[in-house]
Amino acid sequence: MPSVRRISHEFLERQGLTTIFGNPGSNELPFLADLPDTFRYVLGLHEGAVVGMADGYAQASGRPVLVNLHAASGSGNAMGALTNAVASRTPLVVVAGQQVRSAIGPEANLSNVDAPALMKPLVGWAAEPACAQDVPRALAQAVFEAQLQRRPTYLSVPYDDWAADAGENAPAVLDRQVGRAGVPGGEQGRRLAEAVAAAQRPALVLGGDIDSAGLFDDAVRLAERLGGPVWAAPSQFRLPFPNRHPLFQGVLPAGIEPVSRAFEGHDLVLVLGAPVFRYHEYLPGRYLPEGTRLIQVTEDASAAARAPMGEALVADPAAVIELLMKLLDAPQQPVGDYQPVPAPQSVEGPRLHPEEVFAALREEMPEDTAYVVESTSTNAAWWRQMDLRRAGSYYFPAAGGLGFGLPGAVGVAMAQPDRPVVGVIGDGSANYGITALWTAAQHRVPLTVLLLRNGTYGALRWFGGLLGVPDAPGLDIPGLDFTRIAEGYGVPAQHVTGVDELRAVLSERPDGPRLVQVDTALTTPS
Amino acid sequence: MPSVRRISHEFLERQGLTTIFGNPGSNELPFLADLPDTFRYVLGLHEGAVVGMADGYAQASGRPVLVNLHAASGSGNAMGALTNAVASRTPLVVVAGQQVRSAIGPEANLSNVDAPALMKPLVGWAAEPACAQDVPRALAQAVFEAQLQRRPTYLSVPYDDWAADAGENAPAVLDRQVGRAGVPGGEQGRRLAEAVAAAQRPALVLGGDIDSAGLFDDAVRLAERLGGPVWAAPSQFRLPFPNRHPLFQGVLPAGIEPVSRAFEGHDLVLVLGAPVFRYHEYLPGRYLPEGTRLIQVTEDASAAARAPMGEALVADPAAVIELLMKLLDAPQQPVGDYQPVPAPQSVEGPRLHPEEVFAALREEMPEDTAYVVESTSTNAAWWRQMDLRRAGSYYFPAAGGLGFGLPGAVGVAMAQPDRPVVGVIGDGSANYGITALWTAAQHRVPLTVLLLRNGTYGALRWFGGLLGVPDAPGLDIPGLDFTRIAEGYGVPAQHVTGVDELRAVLSERPDGPRLVQVDTALTTPS
Repeated sequence: MPSVRRISHEFLERQGLTTIFGNPGSNELPFLADLPDTFRYVLGLHEGAVVGMADGYAQASGRPVLVNLHAASGSGNAMGALTNAVASRTPLVVVAGQQVRSAIGPEANLSNVDAPALMKPLVGWAAEPACAQDVPRALAQAVFEAQLQRRPTYLSVPYDDWAADAGENAPAVLDRQVGRAGVPGGEQGRRLAEAVAAAQRPALVLGGDIDSAGLFDDAVRLAERLGGPVWAAPSQFRLPFPNRHPLFQGVLPAGIEPVSRAFEGHDLVLVLGAPVFRYHEYLPGRYLPEGTRLIQVTEDASAAARAPMGEALVADPAAVIELLMKLLDAPQQPVGDYQPVPAPQSVEGPRLHPEEVFAALREEMPEDTAYVVESTSTNAAWWRQMDLRRAGSYYFPAAGGLGFGLPGAVGVAMAQPDRPVVGVIGDGSANYGITALWTAAQHRVPLTVLLLRNGTYGALRWFGGLLGVPDAPGLDIPGLDFTRIAEGYGVPAQHVTGVDELRAVLSERPDGPRLVQVDTALTTPS
Repeated sequence: MPSVRRISHEFLERQGLTTIFGNPGSNELPFLADLPDTFRYVLGLHEGAVVGMADGYAQASGRPVLVNLHAASGSGNAMGALTNAVASRTPLVVVAGQQVRSAIGPEANLSNVDAPALMKPLVGWAAEPACAQDVPRALAQAVFEAQLQRRPTYLSVPYDDWAADAGENAPAVLDRQVGRAGVPGGEQGRRLAEAVAAAQRPALVLGGDIDSAGLFDDAVRLAERLGGPVWAAPSQFRLPFPNRHPLFQGVLPAGIEPVSRAFEGHDLVLVLGAPVFRYHEYLPGRYLPEGTRLIQVTEDASAAARAPMGEALVADPAAVIELLMKLLDAPQQPVGDYQPVPAPQSVEGPRLHPEEVFAALREEMPEDTAYVVESTSTNAAWWRQMDLRRAGSYYFPAAGGLGFGLPGAVGVAMAQPDRPVVGVIGDGSANYGITALWTAAQHRVPLTVLLLRNGTYGALRWFGGLLGVPDAPGLDIPGLDFTRIAEGYGVPAQHVTGVDELRAVLSERPDGPRLVQVDTALTTPS
């Protein structure tokens, strides 16, 4: 009979989960024994970086990804990073080691006493099988739950289980496949199409799920058929639509009152692939203008259930777009030209304005560059200067949790080796996932980390102003030199002082990672 | 009427929780508004480092410490570090920001949907008050629960609560005091003393709680009165006894069989201030030799309840030591000389043997130096070379979770500015808490970080051998230069290549932080 380990490895191979991002401890070693050569283990030096890299890799590849973490302390280190994966609906399958079964109850060192309880508040599914023979089936469930829920899952396995006999029924797991249907029924579809067709002034709001699901170009076709304005939903982690498209109005501001104001005059707001809505700033008001109907289409049942207003249909946005394109007989609208990019702002003195930096990116980097952005105070400058017309061009920490950006950029670059990748990382953000630089160096990941250094938590400083707390402690972060830190982790780095030098550096195409540090002027997120 | 914020600040001041370790986000700013000048905010660049620093500070100062974290993502980043604080029984009071009350249910960005549920599996107490007026009382409960349970607690506060009117009963919280009695009753004490007095060959096992509670010297007096051998309990996070004392037998090995073997011939094992026991390696056997009676005295009710063998008395070890000293009429035993230190091992080639490094520490650093150690593969070499005779000389990550060492050393040094502090940190360990270097630089914390670089997860490699998994991926960590990383964070650093150079460097006493990197030969933990 094969061992639990052999069956589990074979199941993972069949499902294509052969790239493992991990940081192992002693409990994890028996799972890693005899790992077939078809697997690749990508080591991270901190669990937050491990999960960030896996998140970027999974998002860019569109596939579930296996993560290997240590018990309570190691899994605990990963929990901040997991909040981003939850919000981006990334199917990460975390397999963590556990002490031997007899050592858990007495709380031996490195045991995770109630491992599922520790993780359950955050992940979509968490379990520790009750016996060794249930491990392969539970591993399959962890993979399928992650796919179905599009949420990380967590499996804790006592390390003495891996060598156990898997039992006669174990091979049944190897042939398992699980999918989900999401096409609206005839009546559901007709009612939705009628509502859209009847709208005089429909507006479209797109969430990050549109880009995750590969519907970036389909969304353009739908929008051009409808002819109405398009927004990205507030607090976006992906760009679901070309940001200079003539119909594009930008990312909705993350407050109740300004969202409502944006919808003034629209009788229908169709939200595809987004929660309604991820507000951030507390700007109270009516949720919607009088007479505006909101219909949300999402695969995320919880997002449908918890929304404070509107009608919701839990369905596959791809199917809904296809159905609307078929049922709406309105002709294609002429949409006009792409929106021009304004001249970048500049500042006096040795620092660059972030708009100058982003203009250089726009002009020097290839059009298919993917950007992983974690520089919150430069948000407004970013959208003023960028012109992103391709799917998968933009990633941002989905829960607003810092520490995704740098590792996420490494993961995106590993998943798409043929596409240029730039991580645009603030000097505050970089510290939460700094060790990912080492993994980039070890795997010679082709990646540019553009480190924007303004010496402060800029977005926080701005928020302090909004809240009337200008004097809070803990906002300044002087004395950081990321070129030194990068070199310490094996990544070549340079400090760049002028726009011309920056442009020259960006026009180079090194075949490994690099860090480019630029001092920037303080700007506000909006 | 005073605001919730004003009452809360005043309560914290009265309780002496005026040093705040934190990494704030937007939700936290209203708590920090109008913070009186008596408070000091120590910023960390990553929440894991924040908690590690606070843990070290709390352990070294013997006082509860306030930690200020952001909602789900920020608190999540801290959970690995909290596992160590749980195991070391450190009373950290975590106050986290939450979105405004109306934004939590709809899952606005940066909300922590069920904040207490996220933290409860780990901390001793977690809550989000049901209304603003309950915040000051709940904050007091968070402090008192941390003190009583000796476990971190967590309070989530919607940020619109801080400016609210505290209500007429709020000042009542300012005068609250909570303590716990732990002296055994007359009959309990007599039975314990009789058991000890009747033992022919008693053995003493001491846990980290002995040092935490300031009982290091009292334990020596008790041991010398008993005259029997003394061990430190397995998987220790503090040194509870002078390690070269003639009665000291070392730290018990962390396996069932070797612990039982150590107790052969003893009719009584008295365990003070430790779980029974924190095993690590799975080395099965009988828990105790035939005829050996085990009595555990601990303040930790859970440790008493979950132990797999022996009698337990939940009581204050200080009171029990005092009682035994009074009731045992045996005369002081002559104990002989302190154990000599063997000549350090050395190796050929450019690397130093860890024993050479530790011999240099022993001889060049002052006797009252406090060491925070997170170098697991050099454990055996450490205990062979060191001679620690003072309370508070040794700290280690209590849950075995890497990432405590470097931040913990910063915290210990901040709490005891007059005592030399050395962090002995492995090249694997350093990456889990690396950003604490920045805080050390900003506060000019007098601290030597002795970075032992062997290019591998040494303890893990050794464990792989034990488990028959010599070929696991993810064990090597080449290409790290911590002198560069330290300089990037503002800490002066040097790479040292020989024993003489190391000794010369260690004999200097800089008034701020420094990092000293040494290449060391691979050794095994035991």
